[in-house]
Amino acid sequence: MSATIREHILNCGGQIIHHKGFTATGLQEILQTAGVPKGSFYFYFKSKEEFGLALVDHYQDWFAEQVRPILKDENLPPLDRLAEFFLWFRRYFEREGFIKGCPIGNLVQELGDVNPAFREKLNASLDGLIRFITRLLQMAQDQGQLPAHLEPEATARFILSAWQGSLIRMKAAAGPEPLDTFQTMVFEILLV
Amino acid sequence: MSATIREHILNCGGQIIHHKGFTATGLQEILQTAGVPKGSFYFYFKSKEEFGLALVDHYQDWFAEQVRPILKDENLPPLDRLAEFFLWFRRYFEREGFIKGCPIGNLVQELGDVNPAFREKLNASLDGLIRFITRLLQMAQDQGQLPAHLEPEATARFILSAWQGSLIRMKAAAGPEPLDTFQTMVFEILLV
Repeated sequence: MSATIREHILNCGGQIIHHKGFTATGLQEILQTAGVPKGSFYFYFKSKEEFGLALVDHYQDWFAEQVRPILKDENLPPLDRLAEFFLWFRRYFEREGFIKGCPIGNLVQELGDVNPAFREKLNASLDGLIRFITRLLQMAQDQGQLPAHLEPEATARFILSAWQGSLIRMKAAAGPEPLDTFQTMVFEILLV
Repeated sequence: MSATIREHILNCGGQIIHHKGFTATGLQEILQTAGVPKGSFYFYFKSKEEFGLALVDHYQDWFAEQVRPILKDENLPPLDRLAEFFLWFRRYFEREGFIKGCPIGNLVQELGDVNPAFREKLNASLDGLIRFITRLLQMAQDQGQLPAHLEPEATARFILSAWQGSLIRMKAAAGPEPLDTFQTMVFEILLV
Protein backbone atom coordinates (compact mmCIF):
# COMPACT_ATOMS: atom_id res chain seq x y z
CA MET A 1 0.00 0.00 0.00
CA SER A 2 2.74 2.47 0.95
CA ALA A 3 4.54 1.67 -2.30
CA THR A 4 1.32 2.60 -4.06
CA ILE A 5 1.00 6.03 -2.41
CA ARG A 6 4.67 6.74 -3.11
CA GLU A 7 4.17 5.71 -6.74
CA HIS A 8 1.01 7.81 -6.94
CA ILE A 9 2.87 10.93 -5.73
CA LEU A 10 5.71 10.24 -8.21
CA ASN A 11 3.19 9.73 -11.01
CA CYS A 12 1.30 12.96 -10.36
CA GLY A 13 4.37 15.07 -9.63
CA GLY A 14 6.22 13.50 -12.54
CA GLN A 15 3.55 14.54 -15.01
CA ILE A 16 3.48 18.15 -13.84
CA ILE A 17 7.29 18.41 -13.76
CA HIS A 18 7.60 16.79 -17.20
CA HIS A 19 5.44 19.62 -18.53
CA LYS A 20 6.42 22.64 -16.42
CA GLY A 21 9.91 21.84 -15.15
CA PHE A 22 11.20 21.14 -11.66
CA THR A 23 11.75 24.67 -10.33
CA ALA A 24 8.46 26.00 -11.70
CA THR A 25 6.45 23.22 -10.04
CA GLY A 26 5.49 23.99 -6.46
CA LEU A 27 5.15 21.31 -3.79
CA GLN A 28 1.60 22.55 -3.18
CA GLU A 29 0.64 21.79 -6.79
CA ILE A 30 2.01 18.25 -6.50
CA LEU A 31 0.11 17.68 -3.25
CA GLN A 32 -3.14 19.03 -4.70
CA THR A 33 -2.93 16.94 -7.85
CA ALA A 34 -2.03 13.82 -5.90
CA GLY A 35 -4.66 14.60 -3.25
CA VAL A 36 -2.29 13.87 -0.38
CA PRO A 37 -1.38 16.02 2.66
CA LYS A 38 2.10 17.48 3.09
CA GLY A 39 2.88 15.00 5.88
CA SER A 40 2.29 12.12 3.51
CA PHE A 41 4.75 13.59 0.98
CA TYR A 42 7.42 14.05 3.65
CA PHE A 43 6.85 10.51 4.92
CA TYR A 44 8.17 9.22 1.58
CA PHE A 45 10.56 12.00 0.55
CA LYS A 46 12.84 14.03 2.83
CA SER A 47 12.77 17.04 0.51
CA LYS A 48 11.68 18.20 -2.93
CA GLU A 49 15.21 17.36 -4.10
CA GLU A 50 14.95 13.77 -2.85
CA PHE A 51 11.61 13.56 -4.63
CA GLY A 52 13.24 14.85 -7.82
CA LEU A 53 16.03 12.27 -7.62
CA ALA A 54 13.47 9.48 -7.10
CA LEU A 55 11.64 10.86 -10.12
CA VAL A 56 14.66 10.11 -12.37
CA ASP A 57 14.33 6.40 -11.44
CA HIS A 58 10.58 6.62 -11.84
CA TYR A 59 10.81 8.03 -15.39
CA GLN A 60 13.42 5.44 -16.28
CA ASP A 61 11.35 2.53 -14.94
CA TRP A 62 8.28 3.83 -16.75
CA PHE A 63 9.84 3.92 -20.15
CA ALA A 64 11.81 0.70 -19.70
CA GLU A 65 8.47 -0.98 -19.04
CA GLN A 66 6.84 0.60 -22.10
CA VAL A 67 9.51 -0.41 -24.59
CA ARG A 68 10.71 -3.74 -23.15
CA PRO A 69 8.52 -5.83 -25.52
CA ILE A 70 10.04 -4.08 -28.56
CA LEU A 71 13.59 -4.53 -27.34
CA LYS A 72 13.14 -8.20 -26.48
CA ASP A 73 11.39 -9.04 -29.76
CA GLU A 74 13.67 -11.69 -31.17
CA ASN A 75 11.62 -11.76 -34.37
CA LEU A 76 12.97 -8.34 -35.35
CA PRO A 77 16.57 -7.70 -36.47
CA PRO A 78 18.40 -5.45 -33.95
CA LEU A 79 18.30 -2.29 -36.11
CA ASP A 80 14.55 -2.70 -36.64
CA ARG A 81 14.13 -2.99 -32.89
CA LEU A 82 16.07 0.25 -32.45
CA ALA A 83 13.94 1.97 -35.11
CA GLU A 84 10.77 0.67 -33.43
CA PHE A 85 12.00 2.00 -30.08
CA PHE A 86 12.20 5.54 -31.43
CA LEU A 87 8.93 5.15 -33.37
CA TRP A 88 7.22 4.15 -30.12
CA PHE A 89 8.23 7.54 -28.71
CA ARG A 90 7.20 9.22 -31.96
CA ARG A 91 3.67 7.86 -31.40
CA TYR A 92 3.76 8.85 -27.73
CA PHE A 93 4.70 12.45 -28.60
CA GLU A 94 2.08 12.57 -31.33
CA ARG A 95 -0.59 11.68 -28.75
CA GLU A 96 0.79 14.37 -26.43
CA GLY A 97 0.76 17.04 -29.18
CA PHE A 98 4.55 17.17 -29.67
CA ILE A 99 5.27 18.82 -26.35
CA LYS A 100 7.14 18.00 -23.13
CA GLY A 101 10.22 16.30 -24.61
CA CYS A 102 12.42 13.87 -22.70
CA PRO A 103 11.91 14.14 -18.94
CA ILE A 104 15.56 13.17 -18.37
CA GLY A 105 16.92 15.65 -20.94
CA ASN A 106 14.68 18.38 -19.48
CA LEU A 107 16.09 17.86 -16.00
CA VAL A 108 19.69 17.84 -17.32
CA GLN A 109 18.98 21.14 -19.03
CA GLU A 110 17.36 22.67 -15.97
CA LEU A 111 19.42 21.27 -13.10
CA GLY A 112 22.62 19.77 -14.55
CA ASP A 113 24.77 22.80 -13.85
CA VAL A 114 23.32 23.83 -10.53
CA ASN A 115 22.84 20.53 -8.70
CA PRO A 116 25.65 17.93 -8.79
CA ALA A 117 23.49 15.16 -7.29
CA PHE A 118 20.98 15.57 -10.13
CA ARG A 119 23.72 15.86 -12.73
CA GLU A 120 25.32 12.58 -11.72
CA LYS A 121 22.08 10.68 -11.53
CA LEU A 122 20.89 12.03 -14.88
CA ASN A 123 24.23 11.27 -16.50
CA ALA A 124 24.03 7.68 -15.24
CA SER A 125 20.55 7.46 -16.74
CA LEU A 126 21.81 8.66 -20.15
CA ASP A 127 24.73 6.23 -19.89
CA GLY A 128 22.22 3.41 -19.43
CA LEU A 129 20.52 4.44 -22.66
CA ILE A 130 23.87 4.59 -24.46
CA ARG A 131 24.68 1.05 -23.28
CA PHE A 132 21.36 -0.23 -24.52
CA ILE A 133 21.74 1.40 -27.98
CA THR A 134 25.37 0.16 -28.15
CA ARG A 135 24.25 -3.42 -27.48
CA LEU A 136 21.75 -3.34 -30.34
CA LEU A 137 24.31 -1.78 -32.72
CA GLN A 138 26.92 -4.33 -31.66
CA MET A 139 24.44 -7.13 -32.28
CA ALA A 140 23.67 -5.66 -35.73
CA GLN A 141 27.37 -5.43 -36.52
CA ASP A 142 27.98 -9.03 -35.41
CA GLN A 143 25.24 -10.07 -37.82
CA GLY A 144 26.77 -8.02 -40.64
CA GLN A 145 23.91 -5.51 -40.66
CA LEU A 146 25.91 -2.40 -39.72
CA PRO A 147 28.59 -0.78 -41.91
CA ALA A 148 32.03 -1.77 -40.60
CA HIS A 149 33.21 1.86 -40.34
CA LEU A 150 30.65 2.59 -37.60
CA GLU A 151 32.01 2.01 -34.11
CA PRO A 152 28.96 0.89 -32.06
CA GLU A 153 29.57 2.91 -28.89
CA ALA A 154 30.49 6.21 -30.58
CA THR A 155 27.53 5.76 -32.92
CA ALA A 156 25.22 5.08 -29.96
CA ARG A 157 26.45 8.24 -28.21
CA PHE A 158 25.83 10.26 -31.34
CA ILE A 159 22.36 8.77 -31.89
CA LEU A 160 21.35 9.59 -28.32
CA SER A 161 22.56 13.17 -28.78
CA ALA A 162 20.65 13.46 -32.04
CA TRP A 163 17.52 12.10 -30.33
CA GLN A 164 17.75 14.49 -27.38
CA GLY A 165 18.24 17.42 -29.74
CA SER A 166 15.37 16.27 -31.96
CA LEU A 167 13.12 16.47 -28.92
CA ILE A 168 14.25 20.04 -28.24
CA ARG A 169 13.56 20.97 -31.85
CA MET A 170 10.20 19.16 -31.64
CA LYS A 171 9.22 21.37 -28.70
CA ALA A 172 10.28 24.47 -30.61
CA ALA A 173 8.46 23.39 -33.79
CA ALA A 174 5.45 21.98 -31.90
CA GLY A 175 5.31 19.37 -34.64
CA PRO A 176 6.74 16.06 -35.90
CA GLU A 177 9.34 17.25 -38.44
CA PRO A 178 12.38 16.90 -36.12
CA LEU A 179 11.41 13.33 -35.13
CA ASP A 180 10.77 12.34 -38.75
CA THR A 181 14.06 13.89 -39.85
CA PHE A 182 15.82 11.95 -37.07
CA GLN A 183 14.25 8.66 -38.17
CA THR A 184 15.17 9.18 -41.85
CA MET A 185 18.70 10.44 -41.24
CA VAL A 186 19.58 7.71 -38.72
CA PHE A 187 17.91 4.69 -40.29
CA GLU A 188 18.11 5.51 -44.00
CA ILE A 189 21.42 7.38 -44.11
CA LEU A 190 23.73 7.01 -41.10
CA LEU A 191 23.27 3.30 -40.32
CA VAL A 192 23.03 2.15 -43.95
CA MET B 1 23.66 55.90 -23.99
CA SER B 2 20.23 54.31 -23.46
CA ALA B 3 21.17 51.51 -25.88
CA THR B 4 24.18 50.86 -23.66
CA ILE B 5 22.18 50.50 -20.44
CA ARG B 6 19.67 48.25 -22.19
CA GLU B 7 22.55 46.13 -23.55
CA HIS B 8 24.16 46.08 -20.10
CA ILE B 9 20.97 44.73 -18.49
CA LEU B 10 20.62 42.11 -21.25
CA ASN B 11 24.26 41.12 -20.81
CA CYS B 12 24.06 40.68 -17.05
CA GLY B 13 20.62 39.04 -17.05
CA GLY B 14 21.57 36.89 -20.00
CA GLN B 15 24.57 35.43 -18.22
CA ILE B 16 22.60 34.53 -15.09
CA ILE B 17 19.72 33.05 -17.09
CA HIS B 18 22.09 31.08 -19.33
CA HIS B 19 23.39 29.42 -16.16
CA LYS B 20 20.32 29.15 -13.91
CA GLY B 21 17.36 29.24 -16.27
CA PHE B 22 14.65 31.83 -16.78
CA THR B 23 12.17 30.87 -14.05
CA ALA B 24 14.86 30.35 -11.41
CA THR B 25 16.35 33.80 -12.01
CA GLY B 26 14.64 36.55 -10.03
CA LEU B 27 14.34 40.10 -11.30
CA GLN B 28 16.07 41.28 -8.11
CA GLU B 29 19.17 39.21 -8.97
CA ILE B 30 19.32 40.75 -12.45
CA LEU B 31 18.99 44.27 -11.04
CA GLN B 32 21.69 43.66 -8.41
CA THR B 33 24.16 42.19 -10.90
CA ALA B 34 23.50 44.96 -13.40
CA GLY B 35 23.58 47.59 -10.63
CA VAL B 36 20.45 49.32 -11.95
CA PRO B 37 17.23 50.24 -10.13
CA LYS B 38 13.92 48.54 -10.91
CA GLY B 39 12.65 51.67 -12.67
CA SER B 40 15.51 51.51 -15.11
CA PHE B 41 14.69 47.89 -15.98
CA TYR B 42 11.03 48.77 -16.57
CA PHE B 43 12.02 51.73 -18.69
CA TYR B 44 13.50 49.31 -21.24
CA PHE B 45 11.34 46.21 -20.72
CA LYS B 46 7.60 46.11 -19.95
CA SER B 47 7.91 42.79 -18.10
CA LYS B 48 10.28 39.93 -17.35
CA GLU B 49 8.73 38.15 -20.34
CA GLU B 50 9.51 41.04 -22.70
CA PHE B 51 13.04 41.01 -21.29
CA GLY B 52 13.26 37.26 -21.99
CA LEU B 53 12.09 37.71 -25.58
CA ALA B 54 14.66 40.47 -26.13
CA LEU B 55 17.24 38.10 -24.68
CA VAL B 56 16.66 35.63 -27.54
CA ASP B 57 17.71 38.34 -30.03
CA HIS B 58 20.57 39.32 -27.75
CA TYR B 59 21.97 35.76 -27.60
CA GLN B 60 21.57 35.42 -31.35
CA ASP B 61 23.35 38.71 -32.10
CA TRP B 62 26.12 37.77 -29.70
CA PHE B 63 26.98 34.51 -31.32
CA ALA B 64 26.48 35.76 -34.88
CA GLU B 65 29.12 38.36 -34.08
CA GLN B 66 31.52 35.78 -32.60
CA VAL B 67 31.41 33.38 -35.52
CA ARG B 68 30.93 35.74 -38.48
CA PRO B 69 34.67 35.78 -39.36
CA ILE B 70 34.71 31.96 -39.59
CA LEU B 71 31.60 31.81 -41.75
CA LYS B 72 32.78 34.51 -44.12
CA ASP B 73 36.29 33.05 -44.49
CA GLU B 74 36.46 32.44 -48.23
CA ASN B 75 39.85 30.75 -47.81
CA LEU B 76 38.18 27.76 -46.18
CA PRO B 77 35.98 25.23 -48.03
CA PRO B 78 32.35 25.37 -46.78
CA LEU B 79 32.53 22.11 -44.77
CA ASP B 80 35.69 23.30 -43.01
CA ARG B 81 33.91 26.52 -42.13
CA LEU B 82 31.06 24.50 -40.65
CA ALA B 83 33.51 22.35 -38.67
CA GLU B 84 35.28 25.49 -37.42
CA PHE B 85 31.95 26.96 -36.38
CA PHE B 86 31.28 24.04 -34.04
CA LEU B 87 34.93 23.94 -32.87
CA TRP B 88 34.62 27.61 -31.91
CA PHE B 89 31.82 26.61 -29.55
CA ARG B 90 33.84 23.60 -28.35
CA ARG B 91 36.56 26.05 -27.23
CA TYR B 92 33.97 28.37 -25.68
CA PHE B 93 32.49 25.52 -23.63
CA GLU B 94 35.93 24.29 -22.62
CA ARG B 95 36.66 27.74 -21.16
CA GLU B 96 33.31 27.66 -19.34
CA GLY B 97 33.94 24.18 -17.88
CA PHE B 98 31.45 22.33 -20.11
CA ILE B 99 28.38 23.80 -18.49
CA LYS B 100 25.45 26.02 -19.47
CA GLY B 101 24.74 24.59 -22.94
CA CYS B 102 22.93 26.49 -25.68
CA PRO B 103 20.99 29.48 -24.31
CA ILE B 104 18.39 29.07 -27.08
CA GLY B 105 18.00 25.30 -26.52
CA ASN B 106 17.74 25.87 -22.77
CA LEU B 107 14.88 28.33 -23.19
CA VAL B 108 13.08 25.98 -25.61
CA GLN B 109 13.36 23.23 -23.03
CA GLU B 110 12.16 25.42 -20.19
CA LEU B 111 9.52 27.61 -21.84
CA GLY B 112 8.63 26.07 -25.21
CA ASP B 113 5.53 24.27 -23.94
CA VAL B 114 4.26 26.87 -21.53
CA ASN B 115 4.74 30.14 -23.41
CA PRO B 116 3.73 30.37 -27.10
CA ALA B 117 5.45 33.73 -27.64
CA PHE B 118 8.77 32.24 -26.51
CA ARG B 119 8.22 29.05 -28.48
CA GLU B 120 7.68 30.92 -31.74
CA LYS B 121 10.60 33.25 -31.26
CA LEU B 122 12.93 30.39 -30.29
CA ASN B 123 11.74 28.28 -33.22
CA ALA B 124 12.48 31.16 -35.60
CA SER B 125 15.94 31.39 -34.07
CA LEU B 126 16.59 27.66 -34.64
CA ASP B 127 15.24 28.02 -38.19
CA GLY B 128 17.82 30.73 -38.81
CA LEU B 129 20.56 28.33 -37.73
CA ILE B 130 19.15 25.61 -40.00
CA ARG B 131 19.17 28.03 -42.97
CA PHE B 132 22.77 28.95 -42.29
CA ILE B 133 23.92 25.29 -42.05
CA THR B 134 21.86 24.44 -45.16
CA ARG B 135 23.60 27.20 -47.15
CA LEU B 136 27.05 25.85 -46.28
CA LEU B 137 26.02 22.27 -47.12
CA GLN B 138 24.46 23.41 -50.38
CA MET B 139 27.66 25.27 -51.25
CA ALA B 140 29.69 22.14 -50.45
CA GLN B 141 27.40 20.03 -52.62
CA ASP B 142 27.64 22.50 -55.53
CA GLN B 143 31.42 22.18 -55.26
CA GLY B 144 31.21 18.38 -55.23
CA GLN B 145 32.33 18.14 -51.59
CA LEU B 146 29.20 16.56 -50.14
CA PRO B 147 27.94 13.04 -50.96
CA ALA B 148 25.06 13.27 -53.43
CA HIS B 149 22.72 11.17 -51.24
CA LEU B 150 22.69 13.89 -48.55
CA GLU B 151 19.88 16.40 -48.99
CA PRO B 152 21.30 19.70 -47.62
CA GLU B 153 18.27 20.91 -45.67
CA ALA B 154 17.36 17.58 -44.02
CA THR B 155 21.03 17.08 -43.18
CA ALA B 156 21.21 20.58 -41.68
CA ARG B 157 18.13 19.89 -39.55
CA PHE B 158 19.66 16.65 -38.32
CA ILE B 159 23.03 18.27 -37.58
CA LEU B 160 21.37 21.00 -35.53
CA SER B 161 19.44 18.37 -33.55
CA ALA B 162 22.64 16.40 -32.96
CA TRP B 163 24.39 19.57 -31.80
CA GLN B 164 21.60 20.57 -29.40
CA GLY B 165 21.55 17.06 -27.94
CA SER B 166 25.34 16.99 -27.66
CA LEU B 167 25.11 20.10 -25.50
CA ILE B 168 22.58 18.38 -23.23
CA ARG B 169 24.85 15.36 -22.92
CA MET B 170 27.82 17.69 -22.31
CA LYS B 171 25.98 19.24 -19.37
CA ALA B 172 25.19 15.77 -17.99
CA ALA B 173 28.76 14.51 -18.51
CA ALA B 174 30.34 17.81 -17.41
CA GLY B 175 33.03 17.06 -19.98
CA PRO B 176 33.95 17.24 -23.68
CA GLU B 177 33.12 13.70 -24.87
CA PRO B 178 29.71 14.56 -26.38
CA LEU B 179 31.16 17.49 -28.36
CA ASP B 180 34.09 15.42 -29.59
CA THR B 181 31.79 12.56 -30.56
CA PHE B 182 29.61 15.06 -32.46
CA GLN B 183 32.60 16.44 -34.35
CA THR B 184 33.89 12.99 -35.33
CA MET B 185 30.53 11.52 -36.27
CA VAL B 186 29.43 14.54 -38.32
CA PHE B 187 32.68 15.47 -40.08
CA GLU B 188 34.40 12.10 -40.39
CA ILE B 189 31.38 9.83 -40.93
CA LEU B 190 28.10 11.51 -41.88
CA LEU B 191 29.34 14.16 -44.31
CA VAL B 192 32.06 12.00 -45.89
